[in-house]
Amino acid sequence: MKINKPKHDVNPDLAKERLKCNFNIEEVTNIIDGGKDKTVQRKKIEDIALNNGASLDEVPEECLSIKERYENAVRKSCVYGNLVRNEMLEITGIENFESPVLRRTADAFFKDISPFMLHLGMFVPTLIGQCTPEQTAEWLPKALDMQIIGAYAQTELGHGTFIRGLETTATYNPEKEEFVLHSPTITSYKWWAGGLGKTANHCVVMAQLYTQGKCHGTHLFIVKIRDLDTHMPLPGITVGEIGPRMGFSSADNGFLRFDHFRIPRENMLMKHAKVEKDGVYVKSAKHGKLTYGTMVFIRVTLVSEMSFNISKAATIAIRYSAVRRQTELRPNEPEPQILDYPTQQHKLFICIATAHAFQLTSCWLWNTFQAVLADMKKGNVDTLPELHALSSCLKAVSTSDALSHIEQCRFACGGHGYMLSSNLPFIYSFVAATRTYEGDYTVLLLQTARFLVKASEQAEAGKKLTQTVSYLNRTANADRLNWDNTHEGIIKSFQVIAAGKIGQCVKSIRDRTASGMDYEDAWLMTTVQLVGAAEAHCRAVLLNTYWSEMRKITEASSADVKKVMHQLAVLYLMYWALEKTGDLLKYSSVSKKDLDELQRRYEELLAELRPNAVGLVDAFDLRDEILHSSLGSYDGRVYERLIEEAHKSPLNDEPVNQSFHKYTKPLMLGKL
Amino acid sequence: MKINKPKHDVNPDLAKERLKCNFNIEEVTNIIDGGKDKTVQRKKIEDIALNNGASLDEVPEECLSIKERYENAVRKSCVYGNLVRNEMLEITGIENFESPVLRRTADAFFKDISPFMLHLGMFVPTLIGQCTPEQTAEWLPKALDMQIIGAYAQTELGHGTFIRGLETTATYNPEKEEFVLHSPTITSYKWWAGGLGKTANHCVVMAQLYTQGKCHGTHLFIVKIRDLDTHMPLPGITVGEIGPRMGFSSADNGFLRFDHFRIPRENMLMKHAKVEKDGVYVKSAKHGKLTYGTMVFIRVTLVSEMSFNISKAATIAIRYSAVRRQTELRPNEPEPQILDYPTQQHKLFICIATAHAFQLTSCWLWNTFQAVLADMKKGNVDTLPELHALSSCLKAVSTSDALSHIEQCRFACGGHGYMLSSNLPFIYSFVAATRTYEGDYTVLLLQTARFLVKASEQAEAGKKLTQTVSYLNRTANADRLNWDNTHEGIIKSFQVIAAGKIGQCVKSIRDRTASGMDYEDAWLMTTVQLVGAAEAHCRAVLLNTYWSEMRKITEASSADVKKVMHQLAVLYLMYWALEKTGDLLKYSSVSKKDLDELQRRYEELLAELRPNAVGLVDAFDLRDEILHSSLGSYDGRVYERLIEEAHKSPLNDEPVNQSFHKYTKPLMLGKL
Repeated sequence: MKINKPKHDVNPDLAKERLKCNFNIEEVTNIIDGGKDKTVQRKKIEDIALNNGASLDEVPEECLSIKERYENAVRKSCVYGNLVRNEMLEITGIENFESPVLRRTADAFFKDISPFMLHLGMFVPTLIGQCTPEQTAEWLPKALDMQIIGAYAQTELGHGTFIRGLETTATYNPEKEEFVLHSPTITSYKWWAGGLGKTANHCVVMAQLYTQGKCHGTHLFIVKIRDLDTHMPLPGITVGEIGPRMGFSSADNGFLRFDHFRIPRENMLMKHAKVEKDGVYVKSAKHGKLTYGTMVFIRVTLVSEMSFNISKAATIAIRYSAVRRQTELRPNEPEPQILDYPTQQHKLFICIATAHAFQLTSCWLWNTFQAVLADMKKGNVDTLPELHALSSCLKAVSTSDALSHIEQCRFACGGHGYMLSSNLPFIYSFVAATRTYEGDYTVLLLQTARFLVKASEQAEAGKKLTQTVSYLNRTANADRLNWDNTHEGIIKSFQVIAAGKIGQCVKSIRDRTASGMDYEDAWLMTTVQLVGAAEAHCRAVLLNTYWSEMRKITEASSADVKKVMHQLAVLYLMYWALEKTGDLLKYSSVSKKDLDELQRRYEELLAELRPNAVGLVDAFDLRDEILHSSLGSYDGRVYERLIEEAHKSPLNDEPVNQSFHKYTKPLMLGKL
Repeated sequence: MKINKPKHDVNPDLAKERLKCNFNIEEVTNIIDGGKDKTVQRKKIEDIALNNGASLDEVPEECLSIKERYENAVRKSCVYGNLVRNEMLEITGIENFESPVLRRTADAFFKDISPFMLHLGMFVPTLIGQCTPEQTAEWLPKALDMQIIGAYAQTELGHGTFIRGLETTATYNPEKEEFVLHSPTITSYKWWAGGLGKTANHCVVMAQLYTQGKCHGTHLFIVKIRDLDTHMPLPGITVGEIGPRMGFSSADNGFLRFDHFRIPRENMLMKHAKVEKDGVYVKSAKHGKLTYGTMVFIRVTLVSEMSFNISKAATIAIRYSAVRRQTELRPNEPEPQILDYPTQQHKLFICIATAHAFQLTSCWLWNTFQAVLADMKKGNVDTLPELHALSSCLKAVSTSDALSHIEQCRFACGGHGYMLSSNLPFIYSFVAATRTYEGDYTVLLLQTARFLVKASEQAEAGKKLTQTVSYLNRTANADRLNWDNTHEGIIKSFQVIAAGKIGQCVKSIRDRTASGMDYEDAWLMTTVQLVGAAEAHCRAVLLNTYWSEMRKITEASSADVKKVMHQLAVLYLMYWALEKTGDLLKYSSVSKKDLDELQRRYEELLAELRPNAVGLVDAFDLRDEILHSSLGSYDGRVYERLIEEAHKSPLNDEPVNQSFHKYTKPLMLGKL
């Protein structure tokens, strides 16, 4: 398998690394893609998207003004949108318009983000999920054909995670058969919606529904906000860009304010609830549960997206570490590759393992989700709370871990990791947003904690719990776990830690209510611990899932692939055991000596993985166009690329910048 | 004391917080400034710099192209440079050209950085430290008067931290009495130097000195690189901008390549070593030791700079948390201020404490440094290795802690923390660089570890150690420490942890050499643990220093100030004890019950500090011009400012962007 076809000679150090690799790279690529056929399909799509150079910028987007960046991104979005519509969806099938492969090729076009991303990413899925058949017929074909461009406006200036607090109102007027949308306060401005500021002409809006004098909570409405021909905002609409952000700089996140803006009754998305012509509100029984569904789906996607982003950062940092040489270890010997330093291996190899862990967990979560959906269609919603708790903590922990691992990769590249041409700062900024959007880290973990405290009480009462919390049944009455030096032993110890922490939270809450606090205050006072308990539960799930899915998926693999995949999973277990020694010591019989031994084995494992490090990141099979990195390209021409990228800066177009004559020279001459 | 004079009404929630504050804010401000007179002087300088509006941009710099950003920064640098030269240095005295107060006012002019920063920050100090009296007379007055603008070029594309590996050569030619500067390889390009790319006309260059056929290692040379009148690069010089970075976007970090470029012999900075006319190399005995000095000085400054940056982030996040309301805790009650959530307090109050800890530690380190300098002048260099080890780990840990605390502040502001107008992403990007420059985190901790391992061996041999490692004498033969629930007990336990970890490293190295590895390989295999040991040592120093300096400095304070300063220091001790439970359990007799009790006390302490939180950040006395934050301004007009900032984006200057007609409309009509 040819991964890339470099135009230049490959850096000799990197070439040597590839000769050292002792497993079949393509086999691992297939595992990550989810099968050989998926790899073939992915490569076909990547060829269509990337082989014609449409993704390339002459001047790097980070050199442009905010306005030029947006305009350049719209230009490329239209080229890219055409490619998706006309060629790529032919291969994936139109129903897979959200395929991760498309997301991956989009990354080649936009270091940052496309202003159109949420059209397919949120607007279309919402139509599919929330429209009646008549509404679907009306809106969906136009949206898929990009005759209309949509955004999704939920968050307001004053409210994000707490949806019930949203202030925008949609008040039904039965005489005109219209809803009146209104933004009653400054905090009710819609804020953040991607593509809303300058690009979209339609928007799905979440608003508090009022009819017959009563509020029925938040519902969704489709709203045309701009004239399709002139693109001017319609009267009653104030819309614009929210201003520059840490990332997402090439898209137009927007604000939106309604001044008694009227839309037809039919523009309420009525699949799950409706307002009759006379104003009577009718709700479907399934309403709440199904909204859950979309949320879970997005979170599953995010876990996989975190895997993708970590794999990008790991590829960049490991290839660079194979090329970079630094510090004389012994007099008169050449400086070693920095990849030879255990401190570097410690920072980087966990990233490879984590990318695998998240990818396998995401697939497993997806299958679990499908099973729950099937159950729901039969009317059984018993496992939905578990799935919700699971997806909440996995979203929180995977985005948070991804962020810190990506930053470790950047640190591992020293000063050059700070160059935008390394692409690491872009990856960091992008992932930084995911830690907050679709549910803030702390809030999500507290939602999982609610579920865990309930489950723990049920276990105490002798009830049998569902799969991912069944360890609470086993550990409810156990004392400290006897430390067991096996991989299964480590996984079990993480379950005991989680059970122990949940138990400690329950005790804290009970102690506090016993001393006179009401339950909600006692809960609130315990939230710092509750966050920790939910994180511990998530770690136990991640360790267990990665371990068992890895074993399942490599059953038919070659011996070498089996071995290296196994080593990575063991690394993951050991890494986290050593990160959480405090918890292990608190909740198991592990001794100082056991931990020292674990540390020694971990250090040896780093050395064992060292020769396969470059092979393992090659197996992620990330094309240079997707990596966008002067440090991480397949050919390892690190220093040449850094200089080439520098020369693309418009500051280097002329030897003397005009500011010298205007300001600096007068200052030097004391004439300013 | 009036901190700010808000033009607008203060947000009522924030106004209420200020009424709750139970201590004298001005007293704490004076402590942080280092005395009442320092506060008065600082305010005077801030008034000069900031009261005429010269620092303000109409269009935020982040909306500009990279070239416009640079030009705008040069414009402001000249205004600012004039203010410094003509007014501010009058107050501080010219010898204090590096005063932190000037640094602080510069932050109001540049969200990011001034292209002139390293002229005063590195070029001038190098001249002062490395010139002979004749050279000083020649160069220093011109530099101070800004008749010449200088940069400092040390780092190369291929080498950063490992200075011995630098490749640029300076070869002496006795016939012409000249040095020939040359860049022999692509990796020998000078890279990163601030202000070098487009601004500087002079540059201090570090190069390998060759004379009489022998290399004498790296030395410094002053080089004129551009014509003073035309600003054109001189023949033999290739100079330019290195391209966009994660931060430092308004300055011109540069690259520089020499093609057999000749400079007079007198341009070698000869205070500590010289080349005679005939080519004879003469070295002063003190050379190496004194180079150390500048490095230590810069690190002391960095610890204080970290305090300043954390205080900015904490001020923004805490004021925002007082204004922001979220989530209904009880039906029909108003949503609480998010500052009421213990999870939020847990993220933020440690930042206030850390800002104090770093400021007091920096002052203490400065005094220690002065004492060592005085010793050195008497010929005693015994305490220099300790100072070097100390400054290395404090630089590493303070920049790393600052970075994670600042990011926690950003997380604590939810989505709005991601807006550049919050200023939190700028602060993060700036501090991210400090973790790498002037010595990478991992490399510096390993330097400290070398010192610690030696010290531990000396303790073993019964030798009495210097102050900051004297705990190794006490703990060398001790078993696990008996846990002692007092503040001094926590500090002592951190010393025992450090001693235990250093001991474990020594054992690992010995085990490995005993099994046949040579010492350097055994050291290398143990580096992951060595980094941990050096960090533990640094924590022990930080906890001990903060605690004792806090008690000293508040001896004469009012009771209320004493109390709140004491609470912050206790919070710092508890926070780190709870972060390091694994180490505590490993190296002390602390029990699970003790830790649960500590956790409960920590949670209560958060609640006790809560009413003073806004007062504590007001005491940092950061003017709105310096904070640059829509979320953190003194008046708390969070939502209004977010909207005002959004309207400054040029994307909002016109209702329809041209890209609609050029690209989007044709796409919608299927005509692209």
